[in-house]
Amino acid sequence: MKITSLVTGGAGFIGSHVVNHLLKQNHQVIVLDDLSGGDKENVNSEALFYEGSILDVTLIHTLFDTYKFTYVYHLAAYAAEGLSHFIRNFNYQNNLIGSVNLINASVNYDIKCFVFTSSIAVYGTNTLPLVETQFPQPEDPYGIAKYAVELDLINAHKMFGMDYIIFRPHNVYGRHQNIGDKYRNVVGIFMNQILENKPLTIFGDGEQTRAFTHIDDVAPYIANSVTIPEACNTIFNIGSDTVYSVKELAIAVSNAMQSEPNIEQLEKREEVTHAYANHAKFDTVFNPKKHIDLEMGLLEMAKWVKTHGARSSKEFQHIEITKKLPSSWRKPAK
Amino acid sequence: MKITSLVTGGAGFIGSHVVNHLLKQNHQVIVLDDLSGGDKENVNSEALFYEGSILDVTLIHTLFDTYKFTYVYHLAAYAAEGLSHFIRNFNYQNNLIGSVNLINASVNYDIKCFVFTSSIAVYGTNTLPLVETQFPQPEDPYGIAKYAVELDLINAHKMFGMDYIIFRPHNVYGRHQNIGDKYRNVVGIFMNQILENKPLTIFGDGEQTRAFTHIDDVAPYIANSVTIPEACNTIFNIGSDTVYSVKELAIAVSNAMQSEPNIEQLEKREEVTHAYANHAKFDTVFNPKKHIDLEMGLLEMAKWVKTHGARSSKEFQHIEITKKLPSSWRKPAK
Repeated sequence: MKITSLVTGGAGFIGSHVVNHLLKQNHQVIVLDDLSGGDKENVNSEALFYEGSILDVTLIHTLFDTYKFTYVYHLAAYAAEGLSHFIRNFNYQNNLIGSVNLINASVNYDIKCFVFTSSIAVYGTNTLPLVETQFPQPEDPYGIAKYAVELDLINAHKMFGMDYIIFRPHNVYGRHQNIGDKYRNVVGIFMNQILENKPLTIFGDGEQTRAFTHIDDVAPYIANSVTIPEACNTIFNIGSDTVYSVKELAIAVSNAMQSEPNIEQLEKREEVTHAYANHAKFDTVFNPKKHIDLEMGLLEMAKWVKTHGARSSKEFQHIEITKKLPSSWRKPAK
Repeated sequence: MKITSLVTGGAGFIGSHVVNHLLKQNHQVIVLDDLSGGDKENVNSEALFYEGSILDVTLIHTLFDTYKFTYVYHLAAYAAEGLSHFIRNFNYQNNLIGSVNLINASVNYDIKCFVFTSSIAVYGTNTLPLVETQFPQPEDPYGIAKYAVELDLINAHKMFGMDYIIFRPHNVYGRHQNIGDKYRNVVGIFMNQILENKPLTIFGDGEQTRAFTHIDDVAPYIANSVTIPEACNTIFNIGSDTVYSVKELAIAVSNAMQSEPNIEQLEKREEVTHAYANHAKFDTVFNPKKHIDLEMGLLEMAKWVKTHGARSSKEFQHIEITKKLPSSWRKPAK
């Protein structure tokens, strides 16, 4: 009998890749995505697609009841970390309440394992490298919501015996990324700006650092995690060890896109300055292949982006606090 | 000009006492309470009462716009810790989303200080005595929601400069407590059971310990906290230092109610076994008067309870997970 898996956010960036890997492993895959950030063309045609929200408790109940999922891969989220300060209610609804709806259903329907993509954002400003034994100190509502879901999953395991696997990826980029969202994902934003002949916008001096991670170093391991007993009920950092400044990234993206680097510096915003993670636990349990380096990864993404063309960014419609909102987020999108 | 304060949950137990103390200090007091757990007769007639929910963003906006609050005392919550495992969505909606709606409004309307009653539940099983420097490890959705609100407040302070004071009370009892809720507050449950000539129900062996705290050792300090500069942007444990087992409490309540102790032992439930807190930080900043001891406090509460009579407990209508729900919570209320 086929294993049946639910992938929320399966029309989104990481989710759509997880769907592909699960299909390769012969799962029956059900995708639930509200298309707020995802794109239906990302969804593998062998998957069954439902357009809907994780806030729709009735729909969730119907899907669990119909398909009796073995595994739930919960990747649906609005992952705009910097914007989350200004959209607190929206953030907690989408990233916490939605997750809790799935946890409820997963407990009620006795699924075998709940795989959750959290985020490196749970750490906040912490000692580097970030390691899973540290106590999280999230510094934005996005990180707080992700951390609360982690705690809720750990609690649901303790209370109801439901198994989980939690991943904390960071700065993932690649094919299927939504490059038309000005609020999130610097690689996509840069590529879109190049396609639109605009300067690459950097908040502050561009010396903030991140370890940018290619999707193929993330998605296959998430998909495969449920087959590895040692991964069960464990939290893993996942991603690249190689750190770049945002300024260095701007140059690397320009090179990949065969464009002259043209950088515009914007006012500094409130964000964690440096972040990179220890992946020893992941390496031990998953024994990953060699990482894809930034140059190669960006070239591959640039190729995909060029065939798909520029995307215009929708203005976020429900800003809840406008105080201190970066001015570049105030201007209407063109 | 009068200081104007909003008290959410002002018809509830702790909230109604905070209202009384604020009125004594000559505040104009606006109460917002949905009466889900509170009682209109608890509300001081000198306060302006609005029946409504902290989930009603439009109402919140109207209230802030009308009254231009100086202080927000946020005490509205559904504080049924044990039940929160089974009502996850409801718990996070009421205890987190509602709080976030108030934080949004408080930032937008530039209030002076946001006073929040969190809970000792944020600590989970931690080294005793619980102290504010420890990292919280909440073990139930109620504690997780309270902790997430704490983190959100700290973040809102950092991002927008909004001041806060956070209290983590524990096991508060006294006049105005809702004794008709079988899901929460053991002192009230015991008194109601005595009034109804029923045995006092204890989960497990009754050796779990708590430091029961009289309302007058809590409410005046919460009300007064905004006048103490050292309290600003700080987290305080608040409550009694004297620990009793639940079994000892059952006997003490029986004595206060002049009733023979009659205890019925129910199946053990998932809960923290021992909890007591260090109050050194609170003592230094607030310099409190002598604590009210349990015997005296229970006598005073018993007097109030006897004049008010037994209350029937409403069955909670929206249980989301029935698995592992204690059987005493399944039976219909009589």
